[in-house]
Amino acid sequence: MNYRESIREIPDFPKEGIIFKDITPIFKDPGAFTGLIDELYEEIKSLEFDYIAGIEARGFLIGAPLALKMGKGFIPIRKKGKLPGEIIRAEYELEYGSNVLEMHRDAIEPGSKVLIIDDLLATGGTVGASIEMVTELQGTVTGLAFIIELTFLHGREKLGDYPLVSLIKD
Amino acid sequence: MNYRESIREIPDFPKEGIIFKDITPIFKDPGAFTGLIDELYEEIKSLEFDYIAGIEARGFLIGAPLALKMGKGFIPIRKKGKLPGEIIRAEYELEYGSNVLEMHRDAIEPGSKVLIIDDLLATGGTVGASIEMVTELQGTVTGLAFIIELTFLHGREKLGDYPLVSLIKD
Repeated sequence: MNYRESIREIPDFPKEGIIFKDITPIFKDPGAFTGLIDELYEEIKSLEFDYIAGIEARGFLIGAPLALKMGKGFIPIRKKGKLPGEIIRAEYELEYGSNVLEMHRDAIEPGSKVLIIDDLLATGGTVGASIEMVTELQGTVTGLAFIIELTFLHGREKLGDYPLVSLIKD
Repeated sequence: MNYRESIREIPDFPKEGIIFKDITPIFKDPGAFTGLIDELYEEIKSLEFDYIAGIEARGFLIGAPLALKMGKGFIPIRKKGKLPGEIIRAEYELEYGSNVLEMHRDAIEPGSKVLIIDDLLATGGTVGASIEMVTELQGTVTGLAFIIELTFLHGREKLGDYPLVSLIKD
């Protein structure tokens, strides 16, 4: 089955009025999962990078297999308090209040090229915070990759001029 | 580099007196990451299963690549409130209080065989809750796999008679 057909819409999650795109059925179906990873691979293979940084937790599901397939390192970008070593952090805005993402301070070396990956590009808050951290560590973000882009939220325009791949524009 | 040498110990995380085994350097090094996945593959390849269920979030980093490599489906076992569809849940004990894990009710079909995977076997609380949910969905747990087993916590003995693989016994 094509992975696109495996995505299902769940109304009113995480709250009323939002239609959540549930990608878990992709991973359940080995053919769909393989198809997804192969298509992402085709889209990012021409980009130059040393590391794939995946945003917790769904970014891990696609970032880790792609890093392995391409012989690159995988770096986790995590929620508050999850990484045990010395960390740096960046805040991003939520509808009400803000949240924090963290990276290990020694996750990358200065001058490293980093592809940031997540399942969904919405308003761009988490990705923006991730770019900020890679830049603080003197890395260069050489690409952003997503399964789904919610174009009506205009996240792309807020992120600056990075190569940006999204498989499904919605 | 052998992945074993990539594991580093961080004292007093998540709290004083605990020495945390940080596996993030494994994923950063493509050779170590590949070596880890290959060794886990060798250990689980003789087990029969339809799905690999990975426990959020570090279980995703090893479960997803293994599922892809072996042509099996991947099922996420998640923390509270993360899965959008109809869910089942199981509680597990913490030192003070308890916590909850969740699975989608339709994550597996009755009769499915499931391998549960996580990075670390400590007291066995999260794994026990995961076994409980797979069983509630009328699946059969046919194996448990971990990178590290903290044998002094005797998690293995609390989990019942399942095939159990751990690469590093500490």
